[in-house]
Amino acid sequence: MHEATGYVRAVIAYDGTGFAGFQWQTNGRTVQGMLEAALAQVCGLRPDEALSRVVGAGRTDAGVHAAGQVIGFESCWRHPISALQPALNAVLPADVAVLELGAAAPGWHPRFSAVRRTYRYTVLNRPIRSPLDRRFALHVAKPLDLTALNAGALRLVGEHDFAAYGRPMVRTDEEGVAHAGSTVRRIEEAVWRQDGERFTFDVTGNAFLRGMVRSIVGTLLVVGLGQWPVERVSEILTAGSRAAAAPPAAACGLCLMRVYYDSETFAVSRTVEGL
Amino acid sequence: MHEATGYVRAVIAYDGTGFAGFQWQTNGRTVQGMLEAALAQVCGLRPDEALSRVVGAGRTDAGVHAAGQVIGFESCWRHPISALQPALNAVLPADVAVLELGAAAPGWHPRFSAVRRTYRYTVLNRPIRSPLDRRFALHVAKPLDLTALNAGALRLVGEHDFAAYGRPMVRTDEEGVAHAGSTVRRIEEAVWRQDGERFTFDVTGNAFLRGMVRSIVGTLLVVGLGQWPVERVSEILTAGSRAAAAPPAAACGLCLMRVYYDSETFAVSRTVEGL
Repeated sequence: MHEATGYVRAVIAYDGTGFAGFQWQTNGRTVQGMLEAALAQVCGLRPDEALSRVVGAGRTDAGVHAAGQVIGFESCWRHPISALQPALNAVLPADVAVLELGAAAPGWHPRFSAVRRTYRYTVLNRPIRSPLDRRFALHVAKPLDLTALNAGALRLVGEHDFAAYGRPMVRTDEEGVAHAGSTVRRIEEAVWRQDGERFTFDVTGNAFLRGMVRSIVGTLLVVGLGQWPVERVSEILTAGSRAAAAPPAAACGLCLMRVYYDSETFAVSRTVEGL
Repeated sequence: MHEATGYVRAVIAYDGTGFAGFQWQTNGRTVQGMLEAALAQVCGLRPDEALSRVVGAGRTDAGVHAAGQVIGFESCWRHPISALQPALNAVLPADVAVLELGAAAPGWHPRFSAVRRTYRYTVLNRPIRSPLDRRFALHVAKPLDLTALNAGALRLVGEHDFAAYGRPMVRTDEEGVAHAGSTVRRIEEAVWRQDGERFTFDVTGNAFLRGMVRSIVGTLLVVGLGQWPVERVSEILTAGSRAAAAPPAAACGLCLMRVYYDSETFAVSRTVEGL
């Protein structure tokens, strides 16, 4: 008989529309909650048996989607690990699925081992809203200028203090004192592409502050509409104040596309399709 | 003051997931019901005032989507017609929108004047289901063969009696006797295309029987999976019996893309974007 052995890593996708975000909440349907319930079910745990928490590479907000979120958890599975993925997909709801799953390398952690992440933001730019795209794209009725969008995006590439564009992680020490983490992040690539009425923004960085991608997109859209000059993107960065940036763009347009790891700590078994 | 004048034609799109089909029902949220409620609201009709029925070019089933459904209705609008489209879009729910709207040419009828229709069926062909595609694509886990799919589709092109693949319209005469209409239809084009794991089937015909596209797709998928020979597609056609065809493919993959009219009866004011 196989025993529960070690740490598992998995790539998952979800439609964020029906979730109150990734992270577990007392009241609220969350991705983490669904995954932990599915694990308890397929492992046949009794209500009093402890289950390992499911940890995600990124804590996506309510309404944000994922095509390649990465999770890790301590295995409670007593069968060959190859059977765990179909077992989970059989009990998970239609809006979340496990795309790949395997044993994690020793010491691997879904968040701390990640070396970079790619998010995509999708905008539908046309006069009339689209019922067929509304769950996965922000509707912008007035015309966007691709050149201005990319000029603004370029000003964010590199290592900067992104305090104006997002909130740091807060950790509480042993004496109960809260410490805000660094707000310095490195954006490696930030590009807008246009395909007819569809604009997509692909941004890759070593890590992102909370709300950072949506805040960046919100500001770039104001620039793309011609209401702010491109220089404003840098001025907001320098100001370092959340009040300086435009309101964040809606959650529905955002999707966590991929999380990258060094090959030593995360041997990807196969390419995730569709990324 | 503008008076209610004449017949209006409009192109609409909807996400069929939340609808019990296009056609009005006593119990059930329908596209027609939503459009008629929106019209009554923007026209400020009292509950006892009669409202013209909204007629659709095609009566899509529950769960079937539309990117270019065409409707017609007698106007109750007392303002310039250019203001009716934004008024309707402001009160319609998020899963239905009016893409274009204008006065219809004399004698035009959304269904009887239509000369052909194009439907698209989308299949996601990969081992694992996709939460991000589930509303608009059928998931097929086993590999499909594009060549077999198209060989099967080709056997349906032309004018045939499609009794095996769909149900005719039934009309009741003045004496209450039901008469089934013809089951002869002409398919002008039927092509499968593959883009990675995504297969799309575009079919254009002069008209379609009820359930015809989903029934055709259901049969072609069995052929594409290699479970039936291509010849079976023709044999079913000849047999003329609904029992011979495979079960219809799920509604979620189907979308009414476009309805065509002769230029004399339907002057399209502008190209519908995204079609």
